[in-house]
Amino acid sequence: MKFICAKNKLQEAISIAQKAVTGKSPMPILQGIYLSAKNDQLTLIGSDIDLSIETKVVAEIQEEGSIVVDSKLFGEIIRKLPNSSVEIHTVDNNSIEIICEKSKFTLIHMDADEFPNLPNINENMIFSISQKILKNMIKGTIFAIAQDETRPILTGVLFEVTDEKLNLVALDGYRLALRSNNIDNDNTINAVIPGKTLNEVAKILSEDEESVKITFTPNHILFNLGQTKIISRLLEGEFIRYNAILPEEFNSQVIAKKAELLNCIERASLMAKEGNTNLIKFDIKEENLIITSNSQLGTVVEEMNIILQGEELQIAFNSKYLIDVLKIIDDEEIILEFSSSVSPCIIKNKENSKYIYLVLPVRLLNV
Amino acid sequence: MKFICAKNKLQEAISIAQKAVTGKSPMPILQGIYLSAKNDQLTLIGSDIDLSIETKVVAEIQEEGSIVVDSKLFGEIIRKLPNSSVEIHTVDNNSIEIICEKSKFTLIHMDADEFPNLPNINENMIFSISQKILKNMIKGTIFAIAQDETRPILTGVLFEVTDEKLNLVALDGYRLALRSNNIDNDNTINAVIPGKTLNEVAKILSEDEESVKITFTPNHILFNLGQTKIISRLLEGEFIRYNAILPEEFNSQVIAKKAELLNCIERASLMAKEGNTNLIKFDIKEENLIITSNSQLGTVVEEMNIILQGEELQIAFNSKYLIDVLKIIDDEEIILEFSSSVSPCIIKNKENSKYIYLVLPVRLLNV
Repeated sequence: MKFICAKNKLQEAISIAQKAVTGKSPMPILQGIYLSAKNDQLTLIGSDIDLSIETKVVAEIQEEGSIVVDSKLFGEIIRKLPNSSVEIHTVDNNSIEIICEKSKFTLIHMDADEFPNLPNINENMIFSISQKILKNMIKGTIFAIAQDETRPILTGVLFEVTDEKLNLVALDGYRLALRSNNIDNDNTINAVIPGKTLNEVAKILSEDEESVKITFTPNHILFNLGQTKIISRLLEGEFIRYNAILPEEFNSQVIAKKAELLNCIERASLMAKEGNTNLIKFDIKEENLIITSNSQLGTVVEEMNIILQGEELQIAFNSKYLIDVLKIIDDEEIILEFSSSVSPCIIKNKENSKYIYLVLPVRLLNV
Repeated sequence: MKFICAKNKLQEAISIAQKAVTGKSPMPILQGIYLSAKNDQLTLIGSDIDLSIETKVVAEIQEEGSIVVDSKLFGEIIRKLPNSSVEIHTVDNNSIEIICEKSKFTLIHMDADEFPNLPNINENMIFSISQKILKNMIKGTIFAIAQDETRPILTGVLFEVTDEKLNLVALDGYRLALRSNNIDNDNTINAVIPGKTLNEVAKILSEDEESVKITFTPNHILFNLGQTKIISRLLEGEFIRYNAILPEEFNSQVIAKKAELLNCIERASLMAKEGNTNLIKFDIKEENLIITSNSQLGTVVEEMNIILQGEELQIAFNSKYLIDVLKIIDDEEIILEFSSSVSPCIIKNKENSKYIYLVLPVRLLNV
């Protein structure tokens, strides 16, 4: 194997493929990054079995071939090289030389044949969506996945294709996050993607309008970004039927300024944190929302203007769950809907149904 | 006590005084910040006994008085308030109210009489120096203090006033850092300031040409920045007579480009790190410096142009010690002086004597 590649391009490709390399794998080969030089292209693959990322970069191939090198060390070496062209070629049986200006590294490599094959996926493309929109949908749901493994299915995000819409849903027993977007596909699909995988996918998706093509198989999802393909295993099992959890009616509807509400809750939570409970209380009145909290060190009272339709209400929350939601919402104004002091609160958009968040209240003896 | 103060000004003052509050003190009062309202000024003091920081801020004092409040919570509350004026007044016997627009906090306070008095220092000002220069001198030496406590005196930086110069010196048995600057004072002073303290001092010193006045007493150093005074306890004991360590002669003198040398060493150290030794070897030739390192995963050879006067030499180093020094130096070109492969290397400036760094080599059996 022998090729020449621009340092910058190579570094970028490594940083993409590396996102699938956990470095904690019991299989030494999976701490490596797979390099294959062929047809004027260098292909790089990183994998931890659950997640595999393949990316391609243009290179001057002088001799075809494939090897696997330690991902971390190789990445650090390329990153530290001067901004110039890098020559990489095999020497002896088990080493490569990396030459860039007056730097020369010799690095042992592993056998490319030992690297696991990528799952074979028939790319009968199911639908495509803007990378930016998908990135926002992932960020807008992933914080609500379960952190503990007692119900593994809840450590993933549901991708639901139905009625020409893509819905992403995450829930952990205390809150639920739902983001929706229209897509040009009338199939019905339910697949749950591990949260760990989606975190890496979100990092790779671009901020612009380029699209990503998504394909499902019974066990995998493939994100095709053009030069880069991301393949993730799906979580096994049935996701919770989340529609049954979303309340259809409410007794109180509040319109509030998002930024002001977030600021008030964050200040109130300073006191709530001291008591280690994160407990804050809402007193929803005709024109005012009064938020209070207390701890051994003191008390706080926050007041803000709202518009209330329906009944006045007192209800208590874990402030963390509300802050998580409000931080992720871009809108200036939001709607909060309540049924009672022991029923979930719904947070949604004034005009459209791009998102619905649900947060369970904390039940108090004397509310 | 009752005063009104701009939120921004108050926040800034808290963040300065807080730098002396460690939050781990066995005395609860030292987790507090002392506030005293008097004569149109609010005085804030934080202290962990070793280090005390007092700062003043203009405020509208409506009722004089002093209290102590929990430093962390008070700081977080003020930081999160809207950018407006803040009213703070005592209520009952043991609480203050903090009011800002529609936010109202009640916070218990401690008794100001319990707060330790600042050491009484007679400010017969010894010398003044630009804050920016002192900040750079601290940053340029503090990395070389000893990390372990076996010789406590080495966990501090020596402030030596002699021959109308201020010298800062730190050493840890493997390397030595010396920074010098002319001052307008012909006293002779030796004082060792705890590294922990100097870290905080460096954060507070500004980047511009404003000066700081420095006073020494047998047990303390006072940095007077005008609105802010920092008082630190000195370390007890004699500092090592560092002049005896600095070699006066050399057999090889190398002139090198600093940035290129740093890059070469950083790349070589990637391989050195893998072997957990950080060991890199210099082969100093007439016109070239060749830096090599190796580990189980491979080898690296770096080459750069230098100007050598004197004998060719082979010598080995712990790369970390060289990187620490080169990162802190601003100059384009530097001088390295060597006597033998088992003698210390001196790194200094081409033209002036603002700094001298010394790094011990690693002794190899077969160099």
